[in-house]
Amino acid sequence: MAYELYYWPMIQGRGEFVRLALEEAGADYVDVGRKPKGEGGGPGAIAAFLGDEANPRPSYAPPILKDGGITIAHTANILLYLGGRIGLAPDDEAGRTWAHDLQLTVTDFVLEIHDTHHPISNALYYEDQKEESVKRAALFLEHRVPKHFAYFESVIDRNPDGAHLIGAGLTYPDLSIFQLIAGLRYAFPNAMARIEPDYPNLTALHDAVAARPNIKAYLESDRRIDFNEMGLFRRYPELDG
Amino acid sequence: MAYELYYWPMIQGRGEFVRLALEEAGADYVDVGRKPKGEGGGPGAIAAFLGDEANPRPSYAPPILKDGGITIAHTANILLYLGGRIGLAPDDEAGRTWAHDLQLTVTDFVLEIHDTHHPISNALYYEDQKEESVKRAALFLEHRVPKHFAYFESVIDRNPDGAHLIGAGLTYPDLSIFQLIAGLRYAFPNAMARIEPDYPNLTALHDAVAARPNIKAYLESDRRIDFNEMGLFRRYPELDG
Repeated sequence: MAYELYYWPMIQGRGEFVRLALEEAGADYVDVGRKPKGEGGGPGAIAAFLGDEANPRPSYAPPILKDGGITIAHTANILLYLGGRIGLAPDDEAGRTWAHDLQLTVTDFVLEIHDTHHPISNALYYEDQKEESVKRAALFLEHRVPKHFAYFESVIDRNPDGAHLIGAGLTYPDLSIFQLIAGLRYAFPNAMARIEPDYPNLTALHDAVAARPNIKAYLESDRRIDFNEMGLFRRYPELDG
Repeated sequence: MAYELYYWPMIQGRGEFVRLALEEAGADYVDVGRKPKGEGGGPGAIAAFLGDEANPRPSYAPPILKDGGITIAHTANILLYLGGRIGLAPDDEAGRTWAHDLQLTVTDFVLEIHDTHHPISNALYYEDQKEESVKRAALFLEHRVPKHFAYFESVIDRNPDGAHLIGAGLTYPDLSIFQLIAGLRYAFPNAMARIEPDYPNLTALHDAVAARPNIKAYLESDRRIDFNEMGLFRRYPELDG
């Protein structure tokens, strides 16, 4: 049975980290939100799934993956569940735990990225917290991007088996590094042109992922939603210091 | 062999969610940071462990748990690893995944709580972002606390087996609900006096956890660090709207 992904159809957002894994693996999946409304899709289907009061184990927020009778929320939890099943995680417990550890560092970084354009509240428009966003983004680019990049760069340096985060082959956190680099380049082109050259492992990993046949085909397809200013990575020139 | 917890000794912080699980289970563990410096403890020991350049799988940040040859970082990942081993998680995969799902919602909420006093940057003192903190905290108390509380309240409502999050017995996310309530009461006593009565399941769960013999003994011991203004939950009266 196909995996069912429940996520907002208008953005890459957090769901994109899951889409990339499913696409790389060539897994059979349905992106429910992107199906036509007449076929049970669209944002209404996501909201309905989320609001189902009969669900004994309700999810807090999308992305949510349904695999037959099991429902899993949180990007990192979904990838932990999928990793072994679709060949994108180590087989042993120590390796699985390590992959999940890296993904949880991505999770925290993603929330920090989000808050560059929403430092005060999700309940306010960006325009109503622009001044604070300018402050937060400047310090984010000065401190947090280099700290996270240096960390992931060093994980690749310490991997004796290749230019990936873990072992000799691709694992799902590698796909997330691709997405982080692509998204940050979109949101902060000036800052990234300055910062990224110090982290050649990350650039090389981004390029290696982008060149993989399934990812390349996905990126060129209509299934890849364009970056936009509703998503996680937003291009606001005043934040790109 | 005893579990070794690596976490800052001066705060409850994120490590406290792990300490509570180890204490409830009566697990054999060493809180490395709280040992005397002469016995290899103290904050220097945590920093040294974190900065060990020979570690092929470096952690991004504490808390870190060492169990023999395996090292695990991120609170939720540590609890996932420990849960089954110390009898605080369901046995089946769907149950384990669900417990982890709830814990990851706690993780995101914890970062939101942290950012009420650091909305602009960790690189600045609270005093240098106080104005923005006042704005963020007010909207956090108005929107985010009720949203998370309503979610966890509803999870307990939907559990047919008892006044816990999962099944008939205690699991590690229950301990985290205790800690969230205790911490938010410390940080925002006025707001919590107003908000908490709407969520009786959460208050009852907090009280049930606090009354458990191992937790009660822990809370009364010197091992429980007091809440303070270096930690996650900080009492700044100007934020308690």
